[in-house]
Amino acid sequence: MKLEFSNILIYGLGLMGASLSLALKKKGILTHVTGVVSSSASKSKGESLKSADTILTAEEFHSTKQWKDYDFIIFGVPVDLTARLISELPSDFSGIITDVGSTKKEIIRAVETHFPQAHNYVSSHPMCGSEESGLEFANVSLYEGRLCILTSPKNAKPEIKDRLELFWKTIGAETIEISAEEHDSILSYLSHSPHILSSIMADWAANQKIVKRYTDLSPIPLNGGGFRDMTRIAGSNPKMWAAIFSSNQNEIYKSLMDFRERLDIILEKLNPKNTLNRQEWEGFMETSRRSRDFILKNQDDSKKS
Amino acid sequence: MKLEFSNILIYGLGLMGASLSLALKKKGILTHVTGVVSSSASKSKGESLKSADTILTAEEFHSTKQWKDYDFIIFGVPVDLTARLISELPSDFSGIITDVGSTKKEIIRAVETHFPQAHNYVSSHPMCGSEESGLEFANVSLYEGRLCILTSPKNAKPEIKDRLELFWKTIGAETIEISAEEHDSILSYLSHSPHILSSIMADWAANQKIVKRYTDLSPIPLNGGGFRDMTRIAGSNPKMWAAIFSSNQNEIYKSLMDFRERLDIILEKLNPKNTLNRQEWEGFMETSRRSRDFILKNQDDSKKS
Repeated sequence: MKLEFSNILIYGLGLMGASLSLALKKKGILTHVTGVVSSSASKSKGESLKSADTILTAEEFHSTKQWKDYDFIIFGVPVDLTARLISELPSDFSGIITDVGSTKKEIIRAVETHFPQAHNYVSSHPMCGSEESGLEFANVSLYEGRLCILTSPKNAKPEIKDRLELFWKTIGAETIEISAEEHDSILSYLSHSPHILSSIMADWAANQKIVKRYTDLSPIPLNGGGFRDMTRIAGSNPKMWAAIFSSNQNEIYKSLMDFRERLDIILEKLNPKNTLNRQEWEGFMETSRRSRDFILKNQDDSKKS
Repeated sequence: MKLEFSNILIYGLGLMGASLSLALKKKGILTHVTGVVSSSASKSKGESLKSADTILTAEEFHSTKQWKDYDFIIFGVPVDLTARLISELPSDFSGIITDVGSTKKEIIRAVETHFPQAHNYVSSHPMCGSEESGLEFANVSLYEGRLCILTSPKNAKPEIKDRLELFWKTIGAETIEISAEEHDSILSYLSHSPHILSSIMADWAANQKIVKRYTDLSPIPLNGGGFRDMTRIAGSNPKMWAAIFSSNQNEIYKSLMDFRERLDIILEKLNPKNTLNRQEWEGFMETSRRSRDFILKNQDDSKKS
């Protein structure tokens, strides 16, 4: 199987798109890369940082180019915009098409609606987001060792998934195939709802009078590393995340309801009318550590006893 | 004011105690440091790592030494054990006494009960905990640039606080004075409850059938960096944290009830019967980012727009 493209279009040259553009060069994939950005300010920034061979604003792209000018299209824009752009693709497009969207159901629905016949679209989710956004944060190694989830819509030609798999492996990522429904459910637990919990946490603490007063008085921040780490993703790109929340509302709701039930159990144990059972709490901490080790596939899950 | 001690006792040579011992040497504080550990296994480990000049098990310490053999005592053990040891201190102890406990009310109560007259105990909380524990994780720079909160019990001689302030600054930390009640309330938001939320989160995700199935199937973990960071402190020392939860139960309960109210507001907005207001969510993310920047005293809080 060969991985040759003469013209790659990265529509959306943000952190992920621009990092992919840099990685393509580094991995020796000989091709011309065109990146699409939203504003002329981003275009200048991208040109000075050499984020792609050609950089066009969306306006320039739509007035001078056609999708068919490219043999590989990668969408790097928010999920809702991706879905809208899919509806503009020519139904006989012969190149490969994918995206790097964080939710799948909306995108897959758009593909299946737009391409009722055999087509070349398979969706990708390389799990390497960051609280940073914008091409100035691009990083040539962003995809190294990361997991890229592939989701095939109905009627996708089977060779497309194989070629994308090879593509992502060439870029340095590992791949796994997961359906849209399963993807969106899993990600609500491992990414989407944690983003919401992180944001709630930042507001919750910052709105306490006493936290405010001593934060102002203190020479350095009052928080330790735990709070800093837990709220890191509260700094993520609002536009992108509003699109994610909206396109995965049901699953996020379900997972947060489940979180709330677990919180309620803990609250009952903490209720000042009850005496805290120290051994039970030690057990809770132990179990949680093992849960974390399971998710993170930590080898030595008996560590730190 | 001079900072000379001939015999320092660090009772509890865990991560924080052993790091302090190393820092004392590095900062050129000439003194003999005795460290107390719980087991002979830790004693051997500590001796091979040169964690202190003399290392004694608690049993050895209590059968051969007296508190009065030292002119500076630092407790580095869980809060409940600290409170118990305070009740054994001679009431005319002439050296300085402190601890590095994560909650204050219980310790301060123990001090005020045990020392009804003028005394030399001022409590410290250097905010540099870690999910690691044990002297093998000691780090000579642990205290560099960290905040150390000082809490004075009733009847503490005023010069003690000044000397401890100088001591922590010599070790590399900044200091601030906060009362026990305020300390325990602030920390419930910035540390204690976040630990509980982190632990709930690890269990919550790991107990989803679909997360389990694909975690087993996937060549590498399914989670991104956000989940990893948010659950980092779920790996913290269970014994130490059970003591913290128990000694600050009321404040943690209050703060988590407040968290739950905020979660309920978000859940109502996510309820599938409601259409998500994208602008409102962008606003929520923006506000949370500013909240985080406030707590972390980030200079440039307009960054990443």
